[in-house]
Amino acid sequence: MKTYYTLKWQDRTLSMIDQRLLPGRVEYTNYTQVEDVADGITRMVVRGAPAIGAAAGYGMALAAFHALDKDPNNIKQELQKAATILINARPTAVNLTWAVNRILARVQNAENNIAEEIARQVEEEAIAIENEDRDANRLMGEHGASLVPQNARFIHHCNTGALATTGIGTALGVIRTAQEWGRNVFVYVDETRPRLQGARLTTWELQQLGIPHQIIVDGAAAHIMRTRGVDLCVVGCDRVASNGDTANKIGTFQLALAAYEMGVPFYVVGPTSTIDINLPDGDHIPVEERAEEEITHIEGLPIAPVNTRAFNPAFDVTPAKYITAIITEKGISRPPYNESLSAIFP
Amino acid sequence: MKTYYTLKWQDRTLSMIDQRLLPGRVEYTNYTQVEDVADGITRMVVRGAPAIGAAAGYGMALAAFHALDKDPNNIKQELQKAATILINARPTAVNLTWAVNRILARVQNAENNIAEEIARQVEEEAIAIENEDRDANRLMGEHGASLVPQNARFIHHCNTGALATTGIGTALGVIRTAQEWGRNVFVYVDETRPRLQGARLTTWELQQLGIPHQIIVDGAAAHIMRTRGVDLCVVGCDRVASNGDTANKIGTFQLALAAYEMGVPFYVVGPTSTIDINLPDGDHIPVEERAEEEITHIEGLPIAPVNTRAFNPAFDVTPAKYITAIITEKGISRPPYNESLSAIFP
Repeated sequence: MKTYYTLKWQDRTLSMIDQRLLPGRVEYTNYTQVEDVADGITRMVVRGAPAIGAAAGYGMALAAFHALDKDPNNIKQELQKAATILINARPTAVNLTWAVNRILARVQNAENNIAEEIARQVEEEAIAIENEDRDANRLMGEHGASLVPQNARFIHHCNTGALATTGIGTALGVIRTAQEWGRNVFVYVDETRPRLQGARLTTWELQQLGIPHQIIVDGAAAHIMRTRGVDLCVVGCDRVASNGDTANKIGTFQLALAAYEMGVPFYVVGPTSTIDINLPDGDHIPVEERAEEEITHIEGLPIAPVNTRAFNPAFDVTPAKYITAIITEKGISRPPYNESLSAIFP
Repeated sequence: MKTYYTLKWQDRTLSMIDQRLLPGRVEYTNYTQVEDVADGITRMVVRGAPAIGAAAGYGMALAAFHALDKDPNNIKQELQKAATILINARPTAVNLTWAVNRILARVQNAENNIAEEIARQVEEEAIAIENEDRDANRLMGEHGASLVPQNARFIHHCNTGALATTGIGTALGVIRTAQEWGRNVFVYVDETRPRLQGARLTTWELQQLGIPHQIIVDGAAAHIMRTRGVDLCVVGCDRVASNGDTANKIGTFQLALAAYEMGVPFYVVGPTSTIDINLPDGDHIPVEERAEEEITHIEGLPIAPVNTRAFNPAFDVTPAKYITAIITEKGISRPPYNESLSAIFP
């Protein structure tokens, strides 16, 4: 059913769908330089924490092959430089740092004079990151679907599907798996201002999957819980602290508060690569602030008076208190998260 | 400072600023037929509960003068017809019904054969509605401002200023009065999807008033309360039930839930004409559902895949539990609202 791919590594080239153009246009861009991959991450050609991690892995591979061609003796320094460039592309999602550090660790003990072997190992590790994410998606889908009742009405925030990962997705993977298991599902899709990932991307994926859905404005979730009934909220995550505090797309915290007050279960779904187990709590997560124009303009069109200022945090942090469970490929973690998340990392 | 007017009655013609075009264009349209006024209300040329009430009053005056010219013997039937047309223009705000019924009551005992006198009374009553709203605005501003601390950071939803009323506004009138009293105020402006009244209209008013502000997406309010600190939320209202349950622009309930959980005072501001004292609770308030295109398109541009469905309730109902106080021209009403609101209506 998947008629598109989010990213593909072939012939030492990374091809990525330009998510800024969806759903209007389906266009792929080829990347051969790590700087361009980092730029694509910053500009959100690719977005979604797991997809960013996979893209960063291939960015490292591009840097390795570039060094192999130009300056094989300095391949390790070149990889260090590439790592810095990639990590600085976006600050909040930890998968970026995780993927880059995993690759650096892989080649840490390799001799500098076997540049070809280093490049081979970097590529191998990048491919492993992609494949493991795909497997993790499947497992998260199954763990999550076990929590989904028959005739389940979801509220879903942002985009957490195939486009945000290398597989079936995180939170959207749960919805999709539940549907495959014969649960009768319906999804209220938060449009997810300012960049409208819900309206643009999640609807596009749900349409192709044949899963019934309606877009709602982000502010309507509480009203829908009160008047129509909602069985569960599912969201992805960009970084989870060891106490369970979770950074995710702006609007997530407000949705969690509504769910909490209205008695609706609120599930966070993400691979263990999104858990920053050394971070004590959410106050230590850096929250990216993006350009004001993302709010004051839509598709280049001004919607506010000239010179109006906007405050545009791209993420928020939901305190663990408001999260019913965190679903990873390892299973379902419940409060207290300090214990349940630590148990995942021996 | 007010360089524009929301509506103006002159020479038996109602002139209204077309709020759909702001802030890009400032255009006024003249109305001489009640049907066109009703249509303007439905299409939101004019919006904001008190402004709708005033417009409806003048719509009745137009119907009266029209009957005077064409069919003076049937002026009362014509007014009844006009009342039905106006009341059906939008279902949620009660000010529409209130204004229309007030005018019908005024001429109830007049003789049918003194059509000129009836028309004169209708016009007089419509003017009284406008003037009383202006006075009520000033009083609400003063009552509300008494609750505003020095260095107050507000979150404001939708538009509740001069454009939504015939005076300085309801919730925005409180902000404005606080500023005039020397409070140092700052406003986080909810953009207010889907129609962006915050981004388009409230910013426009605040800019002209010289009140510092930033637009935020509706989903960011809870994050800002948690990380930057917010001193109070102020919103308007479209209909308040006798128990204090309040219908207002979609997103209000979710903001109220966030404020409740974060310990931020949440104030509803509106004239007593917005209180439907005979309605037991919010479950009896009809919530208008508007066209799906208001969500799937922005300024005519599609933002979702073709044929994507949306659910577009224009309002929500905030249960009284989450409202710190309701501010009217009569003063500050606090829970239990059954008692405090009843006391306003002897």
